[in-house]
Amino acid sequence: MGCLRASRVFSMGFSVTHRTMSAAAPKLVAVAESRRFMIDCFKAVKVPQAHAEAQADLLVAADHRGHFSHGMNRLEMYINDLAINSTDGAAVPKILKETPATAWVDGLNGLGAVVGNYCMDLAIKKAKTVGVGWVCAKGSNHYGMAGWYAIRAMDQGLVGMSMTNTSPLMAPTRAKEAALGTNPLSLGANATNGDKFLLDMATTAVAVGKIEIQRRKGAPLPDGWAQDPSGGVTNDAELGFSTGCLMPLGGSELTSGYKGYGLGAMVDILSGVMSGANYSTQVRKWTHAGADSAADLGQVFIAVDPNCFAPNFEERMSDFNSRLRGATPTDPSKPVLLAGDKEKNGMADVDAAGGIQYLENQLKTCDKLAEILKIEPLSFV
Amino acid sequence: MGCLRASRVFSMGFSVTHRTMSAAAPKLVAVAESRRFMIDCFKAVKVPQAHAEAQADLLVAADHRGHFSHGMNRLEMYINDLAINSTDGAAVPKILKETPATAWVDGLNGLGAVVGNYCMDLAIKKAKTVGVGWVCAKGSNHYGMAGWYAIRAMDQGLVGMSMTNTSPLMAPTRAKEAALGTNPLSLGANATNGDKFLLDMATTAVAVGKIEIQRRKGAPLPDGWAQDPSGGVTNDAELGFSTGCLMPLGGSELTSGYKGYGLGAMVDILSGVMSGANYSTQVRKWTHAGADSAADLGQVFIAVDPNCFAPNFEERMSDFNSRLRGATPTDPSKPVLLAGDKEKNGMADVDAAGGIQYLENQLKTCDKLAEILKIEPLSFV
Repeated sequence: MGCLRASRVFSMGFSVTHRTMSAAAPKLVAVAESRRFMIDCFKAVKVPQAHAEAQADLLVAADHRGHFSHGMNRLEMYINDLAINSTDGAAVPKILKETPATAWVDGLNGLGAVVGNYCMDLAIKKAKTVGVGWVCAKGSNHYGMAGWYAIRAMDQGLVGMSMTNTSPLMAPTRAKEAALGTNPLSLGANATNGDKFLLDMATTAVAVGKIEIQRRKGAPLPDGWAQDPSGGVTNDAELGFSTGCLMPLGGSELTSGYKGYGLGAMVDILSGVMSGANYSTQVRKWTHAGADSAADLGQVFIAVDPNCFAPNFEERMSDFNSRLRGATPTDPSKPVLLAGDKEKNGMADVDAAGGIQYLENQLKTCDKLAEILKIEPLSFV
Repeated sequence: MGCLRASRVFSMGFSVTHRTMSAAAPKLVAVAESRRFMIDCFKAVKVPQAHAEAQADLLVAADHRGHFSHGMNRLEMYINDLAINSTDGAAVPKILKETPATAWVDGLNGLGAVVGNYCMDLAIKKAKTVGVGWVCAKGSNHYGMAGWYAIRAMDQGLVGMSMTNTSPLMAPTRAKEAALGTNPLSLGANATNGDKFLLDMATTAVAVGKIEIQRRKGAPLPDGWAQDPSGGVTNDAELGFSTGCLMPLGGSELTSGYKGYGLGAMVDILSGVMSGANYSTQVRKWTHAGADSAADLGQVFIAVDPNCFAPNFEERMSDFNSRLRGATPTDPSKPVLLAGDKEKNGMADVDAAGGIQYLENQLKTCDKLAEILKIEPLSFV
């Protein structure tokens, strides 16, 4: 493990892996190959096959959709956490308390995808029996994109929701220090013919990755993204990044940032406080280097059977989606999108290209991981 | 009913009743007297006593908290709707379908508070039995402040949530026409010693009332509040008001307004689409004059028993609240608030003053209503 510990410093900070940032000739990685590589990485740090597959499926799905910040970009952080045992890759979640519609689960410090899939499957089972399943987990880890768990419920014909708390990074309105995470929430609902609505959003105005991109470009930050150390809005990307105080969705108090702050708190109540996990400023900081303590994140997984209400839900969803996508656009060259459309387009692009185009620095990280973990390096299409 | 129809024009548009707008000497109305007056108004248009009380309790609670836009300000709209039978004041909601955790309810075009209280009480009963109650209503009307129903669950020691769709007023990101309402959501959770967290927010950046206040002041609108007819952001309050296209929470696409748009859509899916009510652009326009068709709004009411998860929820909520309120303020004279604190302070102010201070134009509306409905006028403290 010595060499792994040493590896913890080789890409500190937030690496950016968005395709549009790449200047090099395209080197594409097939979806299956990206998955294979990540499974091998996890297995090399003693994660059992099934858990390695669950975690890799989650990460590669994010890259496939163009959510690079939640894909392979996180691999090193997970591997470091596993290598220093601050995450238990073999842990199997355990039910602590149960009613027909609810369950309280201890993730026992297992991998986020393992805990999340377990909990959502339980919520699905309950929704199929009594209409709703509401499962709270404590003792969890970073669980990737929140929409993944909504999709799991949608695959069973249900409406799915999930929320998680995260490391402190959002300053409450009027505060100059972070007291909540980016605390994302997701909701997914099927329409007919494979169409869907899939909302997956942080409750901060933007993710840290967007600040980082402006910083690398030397471009200013728009108002409402980030604060400076005195609590004022900053347009300085360097200062915004180093301060680490994102603004809630809505930005400043004048533009109703207190609503985004309220939403972030709501997510923490339903995930962290209700489950008995860490919450607010109790949650540890987390970097690419991994952390030395267990995260004990809280998460909630909700599945609802739409057939318990008005019949023909999916038909109405199709009409609903059409009404929104069909709203007259301000700029005819920019169609009105529905939550999830961008990701669907991202998947189509990857499928058409035949693979995922990672950034150079991501590929370097992979080379290093392959060397340290003694696994087969990533191959290209 | 002829005189009532005539009355439908006497205060068109959005009346503003916030106390700080008043220039006249304070004329205070006791909370009990405001309630009495509204009950009398409802009874004068044939609303049964119990329903009149339910609706008045809801409205006076909003005024008591300083949510004037959702209090007596709405009375005339309700009365007009009742007078022309576009709302059925005597209707009693009916369960259409039920499971241990869910119910689908037809509000049968009844008063919002009657439908809402019925549904939340049903959700509470189910939460006490199986941990969660999830009740969707179609055939409902404007149900006042969303937080009212969360409070009803909190009064039973539960976590409460509610959402409703409303008349189209929000332009989806990239669109130049409204396709969603202000679609509010609420979540309430008790802490110890009567402390609480109570989020109650529209998913638009601001309510129409805030645009109206800037317009009356002749003041510009901040970026991110409203659009002009071409779909651009406008700072012209007059133009913003006449266009009737509010921006979602987050404002423009650059500042992640698509998240607020996604949240508004989420609320409509869970309330309108799932219940089989009107949704999106199906929902009628609604003015102070009342509307000639049934609203058929959709709403959802969720109660969750926190005891199904980690013990001592309320103790942790107290600690959670302290962490947020205790975050170092940017400006020491402006303390960091928690969702619901402003309303709690509003109640304390009214209690200390001995009554509610309505705006002059609200009092004029009340005089007119008293005359037309032949009821005892509002008296002052």
